[in-house]
Amino acid sequence: MITVAVDCMGGDHGPQVTLPACTQFLEQHPEAALVLVGLPEALQGFSHPRATLVTVTEVVTMDDPLEVALRKKKDSSMRVAIQQVKDGAAQAAVSAGNTGALMAISRYILKTMDGIERPAIAGQIPNATGGATTVLDLGANVDCTAEHLLQFAVMGSALVSVLTNQESPSVGLLNIGEEVIKGNEVIKKAGELLRNAAKSGDLNFVGNVEGNDIFKGTAEIVVCDGFVGNVALKTSEGLASMIGNFLKAEFSKNIFTKMAAIAAYTVLTALKNRVDHRRYNGAALLGLRGLVFKSHGSADVLAFSNALNRAYDAARNNLLDRVQVRIAHAAPLLAASDATQ
Amino acid sequence: MITVAVDCMGGDHGPQVTLPACTQFLEQHPEAALVLVGLPEALQGFSHPRATLVTVTEVVTMDDPLEVALRKKKDSSMRVAIQQVKDGAAQAAVSAGNTGALMAISRYILKTMDGIERPAIAGQIPNATGGATTVLDLGANVDCTAEHLLQFAVMGSALVSVLTNQESPSVGLLNIGEEVIKGNEVIKKAGELLRNAAKSGDLNFVGNVEGNDIFKGTAEIVVCDGFVGNVALKTSEGLASMIGNFLKAEFSKNIFTKMAAIAAYTVLTALKNRVDHRRYNGAALLGLRGLVFKSHGSADVLAFSNALNRAYDAARNNLLDRVQVRIAHAAPLLAASDATQ
Repeated sequence: MITVAVDCMGGDHGPQVTLPACTQFLEQHPEAALVLVGLPEALQGFSHPRATLVTVTEVVTMDDPLEVALRKKKDSSMRVAIQQVKDGAAQAAVSAGNTGALMAISRYILKTMDGIERPAIAGQIPNATGGATTVLDLGANVDCTAEHLLQFAVMGSALVSVLTNQESPSVGLLNIGEEVIKGNEVIKKAGELLRNAAKSGDLNFVGNVEGNDIFKGTAEIVVCDGFVGNVALKTSEGLASMIGNFLKAEFSKNIFTKMAAIAAYTVLTALKNRVDHRRYNGAALLGLRGLVFKSHGSADVLAFSNALNRAYDAARNNLLDRVQVRIAHAAPLLAASDATQ
Repeated sequence: MITVAVDCMGGDHGPQVTLPACTQFLEQHPEAALVLVGLPEALQGFSHPRATLVTVTEVVTMDDPLEVALRKKKDSSMRVAIQQVKDGAAQAAVSAGNTGALMAISRYILKTMDGIERPAIAGQIPNATGGATTVLDLGANVDCTAEHLLQFAVMGSALVSVLTNQESPSVGLLNIGEEVIKGNEVIKKAGELLRNAAKSGDLNFVGNVEGNDIFKGTAEIVVCDGFVGNVALKTSEGLASMIGNFLKAEFSKNIFTKMAAIAAYTVLTALKNRVDHRRYNGAALLGLRGLVFKSHGSADVLAFSNALNRAYDAARNNLLDRVQVRIAHAAPLLAASDATQ
């Protein structure tokens, strides 16, 4: 049986969202178990035959500095949830809490895989092909070297390769132009490392891609610095939500537009499904010796249960070992790039 | 009479787009004149009482390295168009060509204003308030210091202040979280400089904003590094175009969806207008001693003529002098930040 540990206190809404999502998840997956981690008063009253409750005394807040989250709050719901994975009591952990703290604690407790200096957050963004583009890093690392970007490419490639059962998914480097002369120094050097990796057959690198390529689906994996990735993700969410709100307001303007909305119902529902980032909630923290998934802080019940599903699927499909094998296979490549530092 | 110089060879479509846009512009503005700069064969046949033709022998291409564009192609349409501004033959120049080259040549020929080390590209992105957020830099500077970001804030504030006739428009710093501890070292230091500027009353700095705030309209001006700004812009364009294509495909699926499209026509048109980035085409190169506007490379006739309109409005409203006055006013602030370097 697969068990997922849940930080029930994380996110903008905390237990209000996480607990109903846990119930929903348990109903949908009769083979799964959960470890719910939270303050006693939050977990009080929750009961399910496949749920274990673990109470803690602390919660990591959104504005806790890393040092506080990591060194002072040793009994936080976030840390204890990750510890479940380390101890083998769970095969994956999910949190909607402070991203920086989640990354730091995960790294501290679980450690990184060989050849990986920095774990990255890999999320999926729906694209025009009807599928999704895997983008990393989405915010774990705000100052990346070219070598880190190469590591992200290897990890992202391993992840997508495992999830989609293909040998060599395509990788693009997020840049401000397709030409190799574009970008800052780090990006230019990363392009060099990635082109070398492509020559040696280690990566299916398709070259520079631009922001719009994320939605075109030009490459299955798009690699970028965490600052850039986070801005791209949130900018897209902002635009999608502006368009959603705009359509809602315009279609409810008067009786004619309301009738039009009824007529257009199937199309509008299809659009909503296509751009609804809740469907893709649950980003993988890649490069760790354990599975950790980050939910969007503002996740609602549907979104948070999708993050739980994602963690469950990853654990069930043995994602960790399979990614580790692929990263080990790329070890000479990563070591070579490191030597050029 | 206001005269705008046009690089007719720039952009993905060159004269095919720029010449019809010039004709359209001249028809719309009986008080305006144009200087059309291009290869003789491209300009051949164009004639208008308020248009002057200037022929050149070279064209800057999209993949010309900066050195080539700047040092070798001294008779390029881009350079000669900018030279018109320097010489006083035109009050503004517009090009849809290579952004890096446009910036380098503009800077070389026109020079920067006092206190400004690096010019920035300031563009407008439509937001949920029905107006637009001014974002800079959109791609001129791919490696910014905190001091550069402060300069962008001052320039953006001056631009919006002049365009909207208000004393102190709000400025946000694009980051990956609202908390002051978020971001990389450059961003944290820029936050400090901006908070100091706010304390001294020089800037209406509202703090960190995230990608989605661009579309919420949380701040009138959003300041960021050119790499990040360019990715944010292109990511939004990519998503908007994916949604547009999706709606088009879904609404033309069958007779029922086609009827629904007719019913929803007004709403869909309103949406199209709201997110159509062609309406906002024409980004200002700020910080130069002359007005230069950058059109999107893929601009069509409508988009390119909007860029011409924007340049014309800026020249007519004496934007250059007014921005210069405001930057001069902020001189002590900029000098102080420089001293801390």
